[in-house]
Amino acid sequence: MSEFRFELQAKDGAARSGVIHTPRGEIRTPAFMPVGTAGSVKAMLPASVRETGADIILGNTYHLMLRPGAERVARLGGLHKFMGWERPILTDSGGFQVMSLAKLRKITEEGVRFQSHIDGAAEFLTPERAMEIQRLLGSDIQMVLDECPAFGASEGEIEKSLALSMRWAKRSKTAFGEQPGHACFGIVQGGVFPKLRERSAAELQATGFDGFAVGGLAVGEGQSAMFETLDGVMPHLPVDKPRYLMGVGKPDDIVGAVERGIDMFDCVLPTRSGRNGQAFTWDGTLNLRNARHAEDSAPLDAACGCPACRDFSRAYLHHAVKANEIIASMLLTWHNLTFYQDLMAGLRAAIAQGALAAFAAPLRTAYRAERESRD
Amino acid sequence: MSEFRFELQAKDGAARSGVIHTPRGEIRTPAFMPVGTAGSVKAMLPASVRETGADIILGNTYHLMLRPGAERVARLGGLHKFMGWERPILTDSGGFQVMSLAKLRKITEEGVRFQSHIDGAAEFLTPERAMEIQRLLGSDIQMVLDECPAFGASEGEIEKSLALSMRWAKRSKTAFGEQPGHACFGIVQGGVFPKLRERSAAELQATGFDGFAVGGLAVGEGQSAMFETLDGVMPHLPVDKPRYLMGVGKPDDIVGAVERGIDMFDCVLPTRSGRNGQAFTWDGTLNLRNARHAEDSAPLDAACGCPACRDFSRAYLHHAVKANEIIASMLLTWHNLTFYQDLMAGLRAAIAQGALAAFAAPLRTAYRAERESRD
Repeated sequence: MSEFRFELQAKDGAARSGVIHTPRGEIRTPAFMPVGTAGSVKAMLPASVRETGADIILGNTYHLMLRPGAERVARLGGLHKFMGWERPILTDSGGFQVMSLAKLRKITEEGVRFQSHIDGAAEFLTPERAMEIQRLLGSDIQMVLDECPAFGASEGEIEKSLALSMRWAKRSKTAFGEQPGHACFGIVQGGVFPKLRERSAAELQATGFDGFAVGGLAVGEGQSAMFETLDGVMPHLPVDKPRYLMGVGKPDDIVGAVERGIDMFDCVLPTRSGRNGQAFTWDGTLNLRNARHAEDSAPLDAACGCPACRDFSRAYLHHAVKANEIIASMLLTWHNLTFYQDLMAGLRAAIAQGALAAFAAPLRTAYRAERESRD
Repeated sequence: MSEFRFELQAKDGAARSGVIHTPRGEIRTPAFMPVGTAGSVKAMLPASVRETGADIILGNTYHLMLRPGAERVARLGGLHKFMGWERPILTDSGGFQVMSLAKLRKITEEGVRFQSHIDGAAEFLTPERAMEIQRLLGSDIQMVLDECPAFGASEGEIEKSLALSMRWAKRSKTAFGEQPGHACFGIVQGGVFPKLRERSAAELQATGFDGFAVGGLAVGEGQSAMFETLDGVMPHLPVDKPRYLMGVGKPDDIVGAVERGIDMFDCVLPTRSGRNGQAFTWDGTLNLRNARHAEDSAPLDAACGCPACRDFSRAYLHHAVKANEIIASMLLTWHNLTFYQDLMAGLRAAIAQGALAAFAAPLRTAYRAERESRD
């Protein structure tokens, strides 16, 4: 088995479960990819990431190109060897983080010039360079460079941006070339405008990709706008290729997107929230900093098998968060990643049994209550 | 086996190896105790601390009394259960850290008043309260409260301070009372003045303790003054009780102290240095931040079995340190604690074989060169 191949195994409504076969191992879908920003899933050892159930992680081209640099990683044997993760890695193209992190960005037809947020060095990212970096890293799933317009842009602005992104997608695909066992994914853009999304999906299919991402969401549009956009996009994506919703999301975002036919997700929420003292549970989120946990000898989640829940009390986690102990980040990240992987395993099993609605209902209720209490 | 008991097993010159038996497990001596300041050996899970070979860890009374508080830890089942470490724990009395961390300290015959460095709250630590806190924590080896004069104090000042410490030691022992399976250690003070040290050792033995610590060293006096002081103290300590050199030290400090008959050590160096990008090896220390490691695909130490050495290159560790990734602290702490435990295991084996001098020589040479190059 040396090729990249998507095997659809079960359906429940629009939701699908399956397996992406790669030379570096199988990716069970729907899949959640922990974010390994700069060569590390923060506060976790790679073996621990695997223990949570992750089949694939994500690496950020933007961070890795700046430090330690793609050529250096290549000389050291590639990103898998460098960071000690031998299973599949998906890399983004760097475009999104150039927009959110870099300074003095200037977009032209050729690419995007920017200054490194680390040392101010001048950088130039083109579709060709984005793909070269991902090839040097040895990424299993490589993403085309696209432009990510800010939420709130007009339909005209989004249309113009989309046209550029589609030209960049073609150049990215050409630059990707032939890499047996590796995949190149296109990214559907078009904001919250159904006709633009449809056009984007059609153009990408004409170019031909191994998988299709939906980009430009989870940027502030809100859950219902995101779901509406997905409702408009999904019928225009091929059934036999993986579908990846970039940067999403909260547990109920994931459930809703899976119900609409998404197969892959990535998000910093479980890791970043873990470092901020927040834990995800089947009943919603818990802020361990809250004083009500100070003498609670119960585990975070009695049904969870992660070390945080198995070996420690809420009182200990509260103390560790308050005292800024590194173990708080380690344990809560481990728990949150375990929760996300348990969620994905639950979704896969429910789809296989045709029981997705029953599985999703209590989780949706728990997280909807939380959204409403915050409004 | 429900009592605290020291079993001397081998001697090589003045050096000794043995086992301290406790109801919570055996402590092989010479022993190094990783410092678990505020209920966590920083950047390590308890199971990982055990994997490095540690038989016992140290907890800081000062930190724990302020947060989460001794009574709270007791209500939660004691420090072992709270922090997920079921093997022996030694706690200091809080005295040293009151001097180094707290604000507005005022020492009287009764005890020491100070303000918490966390929230400025007024606190009062007496010998009786120090022992009560350690009992509430459930500490296996409890230390008397002593006064720790700053390095450079005159003989008269040290003598006055010593007299207070000896009165506090008697009160501490009385407050410790009867705790089967738990031990109370006295602390020899007296600065670098042999007669004061001898007097202190004699008074403590008259009071009667389960073990004897040497305090007031590693405070800036330098290695040769420390060794000279030990040379003066050791003949006045009983052979059949464990001897603990507090807050020491670098690998060659430990070797020299073991050669003089010390059985137990604690120090923040392996953990703190790990968080600062420094690694201990048999050839001296390495600063992983140094650019010369940037493309070095070799492991930190090919002979070491820790995850940092087994699964990662120096290049990766360099990158992780430079990028301030938490994994750098996790891996380098794990490595340094492994190195320290390997050092202690090597010392124990060498003593058992009567080969301590041969074992110590290369390590002393490596670390002496480093001391001299820094002078």
